[in-house]
Amino acid sequence: MRIDIITVLPELMQSPFNASILHRAKEKGLVEVHFHNLRDYSIGNYKQVDDYQFGGGAGMVLMIEPIDKCISKLKAERDYDEIIYMTPDGDTLTQGISNEISLKENLIILCGHYKGVDQRVRDKFVTREISIGDYVLSGGELAAAVLCDSVIRLLPGVLNDETSALTDTFQDNLLAPPVYTRPSSYKGMDVPEILLSGDFPKIEKWREEKALERTEEKRPDLLK
Amino acid sequence: MRIDIITVLPELMQSPFNASILHRAKEKGLVEVHFHNLRDYSIGNYKQVDDYQFGGGAGMVLMIEPIDKCISKLKAERDYDEIIYMTPDGDTLTQGISNEISLKENLIILCGHYKGVDQRVRDKFVTREISIGDYVLSGGELAAAVLCDSVIRLLPGVLNDETSALTDTFQDNLLAPPVYTRPSSYKGMDVPEILLSGDFPKIEKWREEKALERTEEKRPDLLK
Repeated sequence: MRIDIITVLPELMQSPFNASILHRAKEKGLVEVHFHNLRDYSIGNYKQVDDYQFGGGAGMVLMIEPIDKCISKLKAERDYDEIIYMTPDGDTLTQGISNEISLKENLIILCGHYKGVDQRVRDKFVTREISIGDYVLSGGELAAAVLCDSVIRLLPGVLNDETSALTDTFQDNLLAPPVYTRPSSYKGMDVPEILLSGDFPKIEKWREEKALERTEEKRPDLLK
Repeated sequence: MRIDIITVLPELMQSPFNASILHRAKEKGLVEVHFHNLRDYSIGNYKQVDDYQFGGGAGMVLMIEPIDKCISKLKAERDYDEIIYMTPDGDTLTQGISNEISLKENLIILCGHYKGVDQRVRDKFVTREISIGDYVLSGGELAAAVLCDSVIRLLPGVLNDETSALTDTFQDNLLAPPVYTRPSSYKGMDVPEILLSGDFPKIEKWREEKALERTEEKRPDLLK
């Protein structure tokens, strides 16, 4: 998989991609991530990439021309499956969308910033709009990092233990059951006895019950 | 506001806090963010912070003892309004929750990693569990950065233009209307004429209509 990220703040995005699982995925050659600083495609002497909105109002808007230049250059080099724009009014990201995107080959992710991008960019270039949730961030950069993390960890070979992702919350529409590790007793708080029993069929059944119980209590909407 | 973040991967979180709005908020003294590496509170010669889960199964679990040591040290130094655990089975973050948290003084944010934390940590120490959305990430670090960004940008004085956050998507349960900036015509694509009219009451009305239209089309659930 190849991901090209277009942003006015590439420096904001460095550390998440240079640590942990995203770093390992790059090292193993399972994903290539390229950052494109929109300012390298800026216009005029002032290296402009944004401007005030027409009609008045607070907040700057990213201009169409630098984005067009950057996307056109990338599209001339290879085909892209999706040009994704991170925006709070896009489709809300779910595990199902992450699963689906993890099967793609080449992606462009465009990060909004300030008040967002000129609407014509969305109408003309963007093939998919994704929101990571119903809240506003100062830019699309963290949202793009979240999308990348959720997708890249699903690529075969990225996680050390392949079965780990399959037992995650949401993969079966259930929240995960509670987990415990050593010590079995800590300041009067004990691990449920069944988990120490060694009776794996019973443990499996207990986990299924707890997963269902927890989902019914916290997220009944997932069971519908 | 003071935020203490407990994590096994503080290096993953550096760049989002050293750029853009989060950086500016720190520079202005509007927020203090402290990272605590859980490994500094590890146990034994192996600097252990995680272990296999009781009952078997893939994925490591963060142990209670290092977390207890870290939280106890912080709580001895000051009172905390909330100890927040980032987890996909927590309450789903909304703009309303971000607004509410932005009024707090001292927060601890605990980042899960691998399969999460020992359930006893959640039962005993955590006062609030938050998920940024229905998808799984490789750890709670990006989720914590997202929560911090959504909260910190709301602190008075952080954004340059105070009115900007108020016109964001979600603050009034409506998606934001489309925005446009120069040039007014680009490769045959024109900005809606009304935005160039200078008739501000009409523009305001147009924006309200567009916001409602867009919300009805994309997110009718917000209007219920």
